[in-house]
Amino acid sequence: MLVNVHRVVIVGGGFGGFYATKALRRAEAEVTLIDRRNFHLFQPLLYQVATGSLSPGEIAAPLRALLRDQKNARVLLGAAVGLDTSGKRLILDGGEIRYDTLIVATGARNFYFGHDAWESEAPGLKSIEDAMRIRGRIFYAFEAAERETDAKLRRAWLTFVIVGAGPTGVELAGALAEIARDTLRKDFRSIHTAESRILLIEGGPRLLSAFPDDLSAAAERSLTRLGIEVHKNARVSGVDRDGVTIEVQEGQQRIEARTFVWAAGVAAADFAGIVAKATGVKQDRMGRMMVNPDLTLPGHPEIFVVGDAANLEWHGHPLPGVAPVAMQQGRYAARAIKERLAGREPKAFRYLDKGNLAVIGRAAGVADFGRVRFHGWPAWLLWLTVHLTYVAQFRNRVLVFVRWGFQYLTFDRGSRIIPEREQEWEQKIDGQ
Amino acid sequence: MLVNVHRVVIVGGGFGGFYATKALRRAEAEVTLIDRRNFHLFQPLLYQVATGSLSPGEIAAPLRALLRDQKNARVLLGAAVGLDTSGKRLILDGGEIRYDTLIVATGARNFYFGHDAWESEAPGLKSIEDAMRIRGRIFYAFEAAERETDAKLRRAWLTFVIVGAGPTGVELAGALAEIARDTLRKDFRSIHTAESRILLIEGGPRLLSAFPDDLSAAAERSLTRLGIEVHKNARVSGVDRDGVTIEVQEGQQRIEARTFVWAAGVAAADFAGIVAKATGVKQDRMGRMMVNPDLTLPGHPEIFVVGDAANLEWHGHPLPGVAPVAMQQGRYAARAIKERLAGREPKAFRYLDKGNLAVIGRAAGVADFGRVRFHGWPAWLLWLTVHLTYVAQFRNRVLVFVRWGFQYLTFDRGSRIIPEREQEWEQKIDGQ
Repeated sequence: MLVNVHRVVIVGGGFGGFYATKALRRAEAEVTLIDRRNFHLFQPLLYQVATGSLSPGEIAAPLRALLRDQKNARVLLGAAVGLDTSGKRLILDGGEIRYDTLIVATGARNFYFGHDAWESEAPGLKSIEDAMRIRGRIFYAFEAAERETDAKLRRAWLTFVIVGAGPTGVELAGALAEIARDTLRKDFRSIHTAESRILLIEGGPRLLSAFPDDLSAAAERSLTRLGIEVHKNARVSGVDRDGVTIEVQEGQQRIEARTFVWAAGVAAADFAGIVAKATGVKQDRMGRMMVNPDLTLPGHPEIFVVGDAANLEWHGHPLPGVAPVAMQQGRYAARAIKERLAGREPKAFRYLDKGNLAVIGRAAGVADFGRVRFHGWPAWLLWLTVHLTYVAQFRNRVLVFVRWGFQYLTFDRGSRIIPEREQEWEQKIDGQ
Repeated sequence: MLVNVHRVVIVGGGFGGFYATKALRRAEAEVTLIDRRNFHLFQPLLYQVATGSLSPGEIAAPLRALLRDQKNARVLLGAAVGLDTSGKRLILDGGEIRYDTLIVATGARNFYFGHDAWESEAPGLKSIEDAMRIRGRIFYAFEAAERETDAKLRRAWLTFVIVGAGPTGVELAGALAEIARDTLRKDFRSIHTAESRILLIEGGPRLLSAFPDDLSAAAERSLTRLGIEVHKNARVSGVDRDGVTIEVQEGQQRIEARTFVWAAGVAAADFAGIVAKATGVKQDRMGRMMVNPDLTLPGHPEIFVVGDAANLEWHGHPLPGVAPVAMQQGRYAARAIKERLAGREPKAFRYLDKGNLAVIGRAAGVADFGRVRFHGWPAWLLWLTVHLTYVAQFRNRVLVFVRWGFQYLTFDRGSRIIPEREQEWEQKIDGQ
């Protein structure tokens, strides 16, 4: 290895950090990618793990295997727990590492707007474990309903509440409707799964607020057709083990339910707070750091922040927390480092909006490309193509395609294991 | 539903209980299959989940989906916790159910010969959770070694001890060797995974004791060629977080290691004890119930016991705890019930030994069909065919085939997620 080669340390192996690492492939630099987990996660398909369509292994690829052939990169399993900016040292759990340039790509976590106690009842969907938890609760609910003899409790077990109607909430609601109406239809003897109640609770005046009005309306029609009850302008004011309380225009409403999913908000992961404290940089109310136009921190040109950990104003709004933003920012940071190593000053980051896609259950979706926008099955087909193309980078395309093909034809979902842990959780509820 | 139709209750949805249920398809009976989990598990491939070749969903199929079209059967998620033989009632966690005939098919659990404390260090391989735990520890060990700077500790992280050289132990050792030598070879920067030490500890004088001598010897040669250290006549006398102690002819030996797998013994699951107490039937030292030649319990013709919960003498030895025995016994119990319903007395159970197969890593195996026996790649190919055929009954054949195909060509293993839980467990060790 060269002496005094430029050391780039990247924290986080999500879309931002992983694509930054890859883009440094030909840089005269020694790259270390640090993540608390040993895999890169294709988060846009996490809801498919939560609803039993895919296995965790199909959307998670070992970082090490992905970067096997990149000789200037190494991967370390570890958590970043501190930062010494003057010594340029990143503190790990059990160790430390020196950097010349640091890229912070630690992403987001679930955010409950000050109601952290709701997390145990209404898990969010950010990690593989979250997805397995939600999957377990969904499929356990039908099992519990089948056993339950009290009609009111049975009804509660068959009521599902999804909070937040962004892409994740909409996709989850659509998949859940398909599970209840098709997948499980003939599996039970005492209950009619198709009579399940699925509620989608949205605080704002419309679904998919990142999309134009007409597509929001189209998505709402698709969901309603699937039998999903959509509540707009509805704020959740309480979540407990027996149900949720929502505030609507007409006043307060109580919904008896047993299964809740939180898709209403995320905040920057905790490491952003450590960096903000060490550098004195400002955070927005979701914990994201206010970055310079070149994604560095004010006063710290050696620290880049990319993806969900950063707040960059773009045409008057912060960029959204989606995979394309993180990927473009990760690649930009890599390019900027290479420019600097070549003695040039990098230009500011520019975001290229390639459009917006969401699916709603089976063969329906919405697509927004500025002037061009459409919905229905063409949007769904496009979504399928785009996602298969990206997943391909992680080598599971054939498998995912085979599974989706089977599922489309048979309405079946192969991955319906209820994890032991969730079962214990549910039984604890029952026992109380 | 008919009034007074014969009620068959089956406890356990493994090979015994599931095949009993299926074989009752045309019986004039109301069948209830009860399991603590919502899926049937194809246990012979569990070691492939533990070593990252398959995902849990690929060897676990929802019992409900498998029995969807069997109108006289229903599935209940629940645990059997008691038995009232005079009232013919099975007590569940939160409920009870009446039976006319009961089939006990509760299988086996890991058994540590009185050293239950070893379980947390050396997990066995009976459940999906066991497999994920072992997988997490195996892949975490390499991560920890990569980070470790102390040579002695690094060596310990790269030492793997498998206790018990039955088919599970042999298959695990072979797969582990392939992981270390091929799969991970280029993934690390500070360690050489091929230098990992893999030890297989067997208490008896030879491997695969259920096979004839020459095949045991062939298996041992295959393992040795893969670099695995085989210790025979070696009794484990201690397992702690830093290593194992074994007693060999030359005296005591200490092996510093961090990753241990227990494949040395199983005992009947706990429900066997409840049944034995309620019926007064005798249990052997592994907790299995001594059954009549027709698999019923002495004095209780209405209770059948099949699979790993039963001890049936056959040519002077108890039948082994393998899937074919459980399947044949489950089907026999179903046939016996149908005979009785038709007013006939069933003949005694007869075991048809269809032969014995085991694989050793890549393209090697042993096959025993009495007079015909062979080893090497023909045995491996036969194993592949048999297992794909059986897995097919659970509808994942194409997927499993595609995955195995890829893996064979690329040496890769797609399912290498280290579960969060295991990571916490390991870090606790590190911190101590």
